[in-house]
Parts: sequence; C-alpha cells; structure tokens
Amino acid sequence: MDVKAAVAFGTGEPLRIETVQLEAPQPGEVLIEIKATGVCHTDAYTLSGADPEGLFPTILGHEGGGIVVEVGKGVTSVKAGDKVIPLYTPECRECAYCLSQKTNLCQAIRSTQGKGVMPNGTSRFSLGGEKLYHYMGTSTFANYTVLPEIAVAKIRDDAPLDKVCLIGCGVTTGLGAVVNTAKVEAGSNVVVFGLGGIGLNVIQGAKMVGASKIVGVDINPDKRAMAKLYGMTDFVNPKKIDGDLVEYLVELTGGGADYSFECIGNVEVMRQALECCHKGWGVSTVIGVAGAGEEISTRPFQLVTGRVWKGSAFGGARGRTDVPKIVDWYMEGKIDIDSLITHTMSIDCINDAFDLMHKGQSIRSVVTF
Amino acid sequence: MDVKAAVAFGTGEPLRIETVQLEAPQPGEVLIEIKATGVCHTDAYTLSGADPEGLFPTILGHEGGGIVVEVGKGVTSVKAGDKVIPLYTPECRECAYCLSQKTNLCQAIRSTQGKGVMPNGTSRFSLGGEKLYHYMGTSTFANYTVLPEIAVAKIRDDAPLDKVCLIGCGVTTGLGAVVNTAKVEAGSNVVVFGLGGIGLNVIQGAKMVGASKIVGVDINPDKRAMAKLYGMTDFVNPKKIDGDLVEYLVELTGGGADYSFECIGNVEVMRQALECCHKGWGVSTVIGVAGAGEEISTRPFQLVTGRVWKGSAFGGARGRTDVPKIVDWYMEGKIDIDSLITHTMSIDCINDAFDLMHKGQSIRSVVTF
Repeated sequence: MDVKAAVAFGTGEPLRIETVQLEAPQPGEVLIEIKATGVCHTDAYTLSGADPEGLFPTILGHEGGGIVVEVGKGVTSVKAGDKVIPLYTPECRECAYCLSQKTNLCQAIRSTQGKGVMPNGTSRFSLGGEKLYHYMGTSTFANYTVLPEIAVAKIRDDAPLDKVCLIGCGVTTGLGAVVNTAKVEAGSNVVVFGLGGIGLNVIQGAKMVGASKIVGVDINPDKRAMAKLYGMTDFVNPKKIDGDLVEYLVELTGGGADYSFECIGNVEVMRQALECCHKGWGVSTVIGVAGAGEEISTRPFQLVTGRVWKGSAFGGARGRTDVPKIVDWYMEGKIDIDSLITHTMSIDCINDAFDLMHKGQSIRSVVTF
Repeated sequence: MDVKAAVAFGTGEPLRIETVQLEAPQPGEVLIEIKATGVCHTDAYTLSGADPEGLFPTILGHEGGGIVVEVGKGVTSVKAGDKVIPLYTPECRECAYCLSQKTNLCQAIRSTQGKGVMPNGTSRFSLGGEKLYHYMGTSTFANYTVLPEIAVAKIRDDAPLDKVCLIGCGVTTGLGAVVNTAKVEAGSNVVVFGLGGIGLNVIQGAKMVGASKIVGVDINPDKRAMAKLYGMTDFVNPKKIDGDLVEYLVELTGGGADYSFECIGNVEVMRQALECCHKGWGVSTVIGVAGAGEEISTRPFQLVTGRVWKGSAFGGARGRTDVPKIVDWYMEGKIDIDSLITHTMSIDCINDAFDLMHKGQSIRSVVTF
C-alpha cells in the first residue's frame, strides 16, 4: 500500500516527504495507522550521524500513537480498531529476560530490530523498489507502519493519541525511571539533573509517588518555570552557585539525595549525580545516553559507603504491561502530558520540529498526519 | 589497670609488646577481656602507613572475641561474663542511619572513632603517661580493651572465641555482602574476584544461599583447593585464558554473572567485575578497598542496560543484630571458619602473623592471650 512518510536518506540531510510502499503484515505482525508521533532527541541523534548503529535510508520515529488496521496470522492480543502505542522495547513475555522479572530489556527481536528489519529479516518498507530500513522497530514518521505484535501496547479507547503518543518514549522513560528503576518512596529527597522532556517526567514521577524535596539542576534558568509546574521544589543553576555543586546539593538535601537522576547524557554530570547521593543508601540512576566511548568514573569509596549506581532504559517499563497503566494515569489526571507539547505540526513540516529542538525552543513537538 | 598489648609506635615498625594502662569503662562503655583476635589486612594497611587516617602510637586489632568484665554506668545490653564480639561498625539503633533500615553504617560515634578516641573524646589507653590511640574503636591487640556499648555484639556462651572472633571482620564482610548487600538468591550464578579470606567467605555465603555456579577468579592457582572446599564450582586463572577475561566469564556463566564480587581492592578488577555481569540484572558489589585516590570507570551503557554497581562495608551487617546470627550459623555448621585459620600464635609472636600475611602464607592468623 501507499504510505506517506518522512524519509531520512542520509545523515545530516533534512527528511523528505515521500510516498513509500508498505507491505501487508506477515504472521505475528500488525499494521498500524499512525495518528500522531513525537519527535525525540534520539531521532535527531541518529539523523545527525552520531549514532554508530544508524542505518539509511530509513523512516525514523519511535514515539507514536495509532490504530490497528490489520493483523497478521496468529496475532491475538490486538485487533483492528484497537488504539495502540508502538514499543521500541518489546515485551514478548517468553524470553529469559522477560521471564526473569528483573528487567524490561526483552531480547526476543533485538538482533533484527538492530538491523532495521522485521523479525523474519526483511523490511516492509520500500521506495521505488529499494528497501528502506525500519528504525527502532517502530518507524512512526509514516502514516502507516508495521510492527511485531510483541511491540504493540493496547491502550484504552478514549485516550487522545496526539497526547499519549509521548508515553511511547519520553514520558515513560522519565516516569518509569522513578517508579520502576529507582522505586522512589514517599518522603524521599530527589535531585534531577537536566530539565528537558525526560527530566520533567522524572520530576512529575517523583511528585506522583510523594517525594518531599525535588531539586532540579540545569544551567538554563528558562527551564525553571516549567519544572516548578511539574513539581520541582528547588532549582539549582550550577553556574550561579559558589563552590562545589556536589557539596551544595548534599547540604540542600540535608545529607544527600535519596535518589538522583541524570537526564542529559553528560558523563561528568553522571558523576555529580552519584556523588550528591546520601551516604549509606543514595541511589543514582543514569537515564541520559552518553557519547560513544565516553566513560563514567568515581572513587569506589562512593559505592563502599553505600551509594548505588544504576541505569534505566525506557524507564524500566515492560511496554505491553506498563504503558497502558501510564495512559490510565494520564487519563486520571495523575500526570500531565499536555504541557510538554510545545508545538504541533503536520508531517509535511516535520523538519521544523528538528529545527526547534536544535534551537532549544521546544520541549516536544508532536507531528500529526 | 595493667594490660598486655601489642603497640604500634609508628608506620613500618614491628609491634612491641608492652604493659599499658587501661582506664575503667566510663558511662556507656564496656571493659572486655580479649581472648583471641584475628590479624587482618586492614591492620597491616594501617601499620604500613598507606592508611591516610592512621594515628600513632596505637593499639591495632579489630577482629576480636572476648568476655565482658565490667560495664560502665547505664549499660544494659551486656553484663559481666557475657561473650561478645567487638564491632568496628557499631549499631546504636537511634541515629538516622540505623533508623533508615537501609544501611549498616551507623554514624553515632564515627567522628570520635576516626580520631582514635572514645565517644567522650578521650582515650582509655596510655603508656608511661602518654596517650595511646584506640584503633577502629576496637583495639583488640590487647588482653583487655574498652568499647562503647553500641559497639559490642553479645553472642552465645558456647561459641569458641578463638574461631568466632573472625566474625568480627572477615567472615561477616564476605558472607554479609552476599546475604545483606547483594541478596543473592538460590540458583544464581556468582563470580568472585580474589580468593583470599574475604573471597572465601563470599563463596561460602553464595553456597549457603543456594547459588548454582560459583566461579572463583584468582591469578594464584594455589587458591583453588581451599576455594573448592568452600563451594567454588569453577576456577578461572586470568593468566591462563586466551582472550578477554570478561568475555570468558560471560560465556562461562551463560550470559554473565547474576552477582559478582570484587574482594581485592583493584580498580581494574572492579571494572571487570561489573562488566562480566548479566545484561538486564547483574549486580556487582565492591568489597575490596582501593588505594587512596584511585578511581573506577566504565561506559554508562553498562548501567543503562541494567547492570548495578554497589559496594559493601562490614558485609552490610548491623553488628549487634547480625553478628549473633552468624555465630549461630557457625555453631549450626552452616559455615566453616576453622579452615580459614591457618595459624594460631600467642600475642608475643604477633609480628609473625604480619610476616606470614605479607608472604601470602596465611589466610588468617589468630592470636590468643
């Protein structure tokens, strides 16, 4: 079938709107009409050429919301008409990772997803007879896409797709790191480094679970207002304090953070995030993605005296299980997504979304079809 | 009173047996007759001068077992005649750390203990009118010593002090890291780096809780036999394998260690211990103490993909609560301490214990009075 898509032909080039060919879903696959998709930093990262695993030409996009149009043979968990969110981290419920109940990093289709193809090793997308690669198994910058059934979260029918599409990445990544990975308890002191889309969701996650002090750290004072709206209690601009940031944060939190989160991808900040944690029990969670080859360091004394260093991907969320719950939280008013969406635009203007992001003028742009 | 003690007058000097003066216990303190004490690497570390916090002249020793002789005013938890183990990590059950239930690092007397004095700021030991510093709050290289009540674990009357004294440090440090810090479950795959006294206790802890594969890693093949006795299932000599040690261990454990432990204090090994952990859930615990200023490093990707880096001090054990339990485990035959004790000697020969340790000819020497 003909599909309207924003195609990335190579690194650094603007996306081009094309009519591409999409094959019908094969056994175990689902055809989805994408109604809306967020444009995330990870899309820009791959488009920039910095992602060593980037494959071109491809259809980017991994933060979508859509409706099932057709299911392939053997698909039982969704049917035509269901509202769904595509999952770049699938949940097969059968692999050793899913069954461990200790991680959300389902490995069932990892190798083919990394190669830009469906689990049977082929792509469903083509343009003029030439194969296009899938991206993160989702390729939501197209008005129709095909996904494996295990990479589709069914959500409630009354959820607005142009909002809850952000649960496909940014919302879950931040919120889930609080709820699933760090397991922040009520009354905790939390420090969040980086107040972009992920950091804001960490803040509202911390607020939702009843954290006491929620400290936001960012060198951009313009981030303060939105972060306060999301629940930040204290703002720290590292450029505006005298002396050492870590010592400042330890004092501000009365001995150190019970939980800290790095939402930038800066290895020096990751160290600060660990070291501002409370002796004895502080847990620091790395969410940001560092540049290729970069390393984190600290003195092991930090760990021996009780700090814990961990990380989170997709907020530790098991997509088919947890994404529908987060949609419920949004519908029940427990979390705010609307304020994150600073711009909406048609797919025809998707390059504007990247421009706004690069200029730091957006939190999230949502593209509709 | 007159006390027979091995006094450390300065770094690098042999200990000298002296008759020193010990004052009576003050309120909240306990006078203990030490019957036996292990000689641990930490004593040697301080004696060598490498410990930046070392104070001299002092009476070293922190792995003791003894009997209460007299209690100061207000002491209620022990009485004359009780068998006890001195605790260099106390348990006051009143400070924010104890009450957090998240750490064993009681801070009640930390600052005075670090300064080599009792909680009221003075020392009980002197020699010829000159003050001697307490060491780690315990100073067990003396036939009598004074400790704060919160640093004394009461144990059962039938426990042999010349064996269970090792529960005052080495046994608890290794066993506790498994049970309290990492919380290893039955069926886990465990990798232990360094098969000295601590590593052996990690191994027997892993065996006790039902770990499946227990891999010991050491460059000294002579460590193999004892480690097998303690429950090691696989021995790896890094010098004897082709290629990368981490890859080798990941393959040997079918995807990586569920739990790994560093029992050496080598920051490069700490990195290997983290990176040989299983993606998604592997937990690496640092036990070894690195040299001053040394740092650990890794790519943050290791954490984001689910590995956890933590540390353990005194095995995460709350001394007054957990030490008596470990004594019970020994008395019930669940753990072996006897085989760890390669040498016993009188306090008069304590310098031989240091020599044996430096030559790698002992696991533990126990000194008796």
